This record gives sequence, structure tokens and C-alpha cells, in this order.
Amino acid sequence: NRLNIPFEKRMELSTNSIAKKLFNIMATKKTNLCLSVDMTSSTKIIDLLEKVGEHICLVKTHIDIIEDFSDNFIMQLKQLATKFNFLILEDRKFADIGNTVSLQYTKGIYKISEWADCVTVHSLPGEGILKALNSCTNTGSKGVFFLAEMSSEGNLITHQYTEATVKMAAKYPDLITGFVCQKKETFNNPGLIQLTPGVQLDSSKDDFGQVYNTPEKVVLENGADVVVVGRGIVASKNPEAQAGIYKNTLWKCYMKRVSG
Amino acid sequence: NRLNIPFEKRMELSTNSIAKKLFNIMATKKTNLCLSVDMTSSTKIIDLLEKVGEHICLVKTHIDIIEDFSDNFIMQLKQLATKFNFLILEDRKFADIGNTVSLQYTKGIYKISEWADCVTVHSLPGEGILKALNSCTNTGSKGVFFLAEMSSEGNLITHQYTEATVKMAAKYPDLITGFVCQKKETFNNPGLIQLTPGVQLDSSKDDFGQVYNTPEKVVLENGADVVVVGRGIVASKNPEAQAGIYKNTLWKCYMKRVSG
Ligand SMILES: O=c1cc(CO)n([C@@H]2O[C@H](COP(=O)(O)O)[C@@H](O)[C@H]2O)c(=O)[nH]1
Ligand SMILES: O=c1cc(CO)n([C@@H]2O[C@H](COP(=O)(O)O)[C@@H](O)[C@H]2O)c(=O)[nH]1
Repeated sequence: NRLNIPFEKRMELSTNSIAKKLFNIMATKKTNLCLSVDMTSSTKIIDLLEKVGEHICLVKTHIDIIEDFSDNFIMQLKQLATKFNFLILEDRKFADIGNTVSLQYTKGIYKISEWADCVTVHSLPGEGILKALNSCTNTGSKGVFFLAEMSSEGNLITHQYTEATVKMAAKYPDLITGFVCQKKETFNNPGLIQLTPGVQLDSSKDDFGQVYNTPEKVVLENGADVVVVGRGIVASKNPEAQAGIYKNTLWKCYMKRVSG
Repeated sequence: NRLNIPFEKRMELSTNSIAKKLFNIMATKKTNLCLSVDMTSSTKIIDLLEKVGEHICLVKTHIDIIEDFSDNFIMQLKQLATKFNFLILEDRKFADIGNTVSLQYTKGIYKISEWADCVTVHSLPGEGILKALNSCTNTGSKGVFFLAEMSSEGNLITHQYTEATVKMAAKYPDLITGFVCQKKETFNNPGLIQLTPGVQLDSSKDDFGQVYNTPEKVVLENGADVVVVGRGIVASKNPEAQAGIYKNTLWKCYMKRVSG
């Protein structure tokens, strides 16, 4: 059972280089908090990361919402990633035919493949999407978090969809870092990472269908390895303090899980 | 049956302003060709549109693959849209929770809501995605092409998924321009537009799962109203000539359909 194996051990079972790195960072920094920096100002993102970088294993970006995006922002982000030892996940949710996705991943203003350690990908378009990403060889070490479930109310993902997603991923062991999902039953492979969004301490939903659970619920009951927190931290009055609180709470839950 | 009603008549049945406009353009210019300008150079896109603008009713962009994107490109694109009387569809395939999608639609470098007449949206995340787009009031007239089916091999869309998508759309009559889909059975409402990609005269597939059909097949058998052509035109030796050929072939098919 992957849930009881410590991250140090699971690292050795990973076939994707980014999964190995992320397990290692979590074990070393003792944090499984992924901060979703859903803010539209690059300066504010950099300022926040300077303060909370020590608390996180992964930063999740929506690069296309940043109003003052520049190559300099990417440079600063990478410097912070090195300074604080965290990885970068661009939450692009690729969802097109393979040919289009390979262009979206490597070209344009953002050139995601050049700076993101990993990206999120929907399985909806079929296997061509993974085949295309896999063939983008301009980067060495890269990873995919494959969406097997979503956090939002009324989403159209069925059990069959999730199963087909996990099956599709199994053909690309070098590429797949893990799954974005909500349930521990979704997959078994201990070398893969369960990334779970939809977590907030002070709220149970937003106005557009987002559903929140508690850290205890997602880590202990639902099998989350890395937990994504966005507005719970970035929209709070004191993001720095909140980041510390989420980090400690989430790590305690993980410790309880592996020791129990 | 929507398939036998001419575009002029269907225009009157549309509840979305962009669908009305698009039906009107098709009827006036006698073209149901949507050109997918999947090129990474803005200058090349503008040059091509100068040549083929007269042949198309809709231009479909992947704004995030353009290497030299600038606000000036958007200005030129809008000028061409006015000059040649076509609409602009940004094929963003939004596929996230509502809160994130509203940021992606209105913010960032691209500010899609400010220039795109319509956008493509996945139903996968659930109704919150439409609710969020609907609440972005910074634009007047806007439209959504909702993905009910995909062209790619092995995609995970089931009959149930398609049905749920069409049902979800029915709650947003002002917002929905039509469906991106492959089959005539997908929906009945004659005020909505069927946009069908995956068409090429010289090829039956690509290396990453794209599947091609002929103009006859998609318009006469499968119910396409507007047909998306990408590489069939942009990757051909003479895009200008090809655009003319696709336009004429597609329009003949439509004429045969409504008269038969
Ligand atoms: O199913 C999902 C998948 C993802 C990530 O791939 N997300 C993302 O997590 C973040 C949750 O933010 P929140 O904690 O503020 O709701 C958002 O960036 C959202 O786009 C979700 O909220 N739900
Ligand atoms: O199911 C779909 C949906 C879309 C549009 O929403 N597309 C898009 O049409 C275009 C087809 O290009 P092609 O004619 O070169 O294959 C691409 O931009 C692709 O992203 C598809 O190819 N398949």
C-alpha cells in the first residue's frame, strides 16, 4: 500500500525523474505543501515566494493570468526554486490534440517546456497528448501530472474515465510524475505522486463550483501526497503565517499516515 | 431538422449574439470555412489572412503558440476581421475550475476576453466553468463553442459525456454559440452552430492521433455547419489556392445539404 510507505522509499520506486526529485525535496524539507500562486502580479508572486519558499515543495503557476509577465519573472522564479529547493508545476491543463499541445508546450511567449519541471495534462483527448509531449525532446528532465479526477462540483469524470486515464499513463512511465486526483483508490503505484487540490481550512466552497476539504480528510482518508493550496494562503490576510500553518498541519497528517 | 434549414433562417433562431453574427457572415460571404492559423509567427499569420480573408467566416487562433505575440498583432487581426468580415475564435479549450478560468479569460498577457468573439470550452470541470465565463461582464457580446466531442483517436468522450455537455449548455442560451463536435445527432437546436475540426483532403491522420475526414463526410453525413481546416491549408504549398478550394468544396456540400 503506497499510503504507508515513506517518501524516501517511494523515491526509489519512481521511474520519472521529477517524481524522484519531488519525493526527495518533501523528505528533506519535511513539507508536502504545494502553493498555487494564483495572483496576477509577478512582483507579488516573487515577494510571496521569498517569504514562504521555505515552507513548500512545489509552486504551481497559472502563467497565463500574470499581467506583467516577462522573461525576467521566469529567471527570478527559477532562482527562488534553486534558493529554496522547490519545483515548478505549470498548471496548463493541456487538453487538445497532440500536435497542438506540442506547440503550446514548447512555443509562444511562455515556452513552458523551458522552465516548468512539470505540467498538468488532461487525458480527455486520448493518448496522442502524451505521445506528443513525450516527443518534445528540447528538455531533459520533465514530468506530467495527469488529471484523473477534478475537485469541482458536477464535473463529468466517471469511474471509467479515471480508470482509462490511469491505464493510459502506464504506457509512459518515464513521463508521468503522478496524478491530479481526489481518491486514494485511483492508483496503486508507489512511485507516482498523488497531487490533490481543493483544500482550505476556512471554507467549504467558492462561487464557481470549487469544493474544499480539510488537510486531514485529503491526506489521511483520501491519500493525497502533495496538497495544493491556493486562496487558503494567497487570499488570506497573512499569507506567510498561513503557509506555515498549512505546512505543519499537512506534514503532521502525512506523518500520522506513514506511522499508522 | 436543423440540417436542412438555411443559415439565414437559423440566424433568427439564435439566442447568442455571436451565433447570429456568424450565421449572417456565412450567408452573406457564402463560406462556412474556419481557418485554423496554427502558425508561430504573427507576421506570417497576418500575411496569410490578407490573402485568404475573403474565403473565411471565422479564424481560429491558438494565441499561446505565437512566438512574436504583441498587442499590435491583436490590432492587426481585428482590423482584418473588420476589413474581410470574419469573426475570431480563440481555441483556448478552457478546462479548469471556474475561478481559474475567469482569470485566464480576462487577465494575463493575452486578455482573451477583449478581442476574441468566442472561445472553446471543455465541459469536463462541470457547470462552474460556464457560470464563471458568464459572469465576466467586461465584454459585451461573447460566445462559447462548447466541446461535446473531439476529433482525436482514443479520446475519452462517451455518449453520456456528450449528452451531459449538451444539457449543461442548455442552461446558458445567451452564452453558447454552438458545439465543437463530430456528429449530427449531438444536438438539435437550429440556433446553435456545429463546428467540426479534423478535415483534410490529402491525409487521413497525423502522427499524434488527429483523425481526418473529407468535406463531404463532415458536412453531408455528420452535420458540420462550420468546418475547421488547419494544416490542410497552412501547411500546403499554396495556402491561398487551397483556401479557395476548401471554401468552394465546403460551400457546395452545404448547398447540397440544405437543398436536399
Ligand atoms: O481538479 C482540480 C485541479 C486543479 C489543478 O490542476 N485545480 C487548481 O488548483 C488551484 C486551487 O486553488 P484554490 O485553493 O484557490 O481553490 C487552482 O489553481 C485550480 O486551477 C483545482 O482547483 N481543481
Ligand atoms: O476535437 C478537436 C477540437 C479542435 C478545436 O477545438 N481541434 C483543433 O482544430 C485544429 C485542427 O488542425 P488540423 O486541421 O491542422 O489538424 C487544431 O488547431 C486543433 O487544436 C481539433 O483538431 N480537434
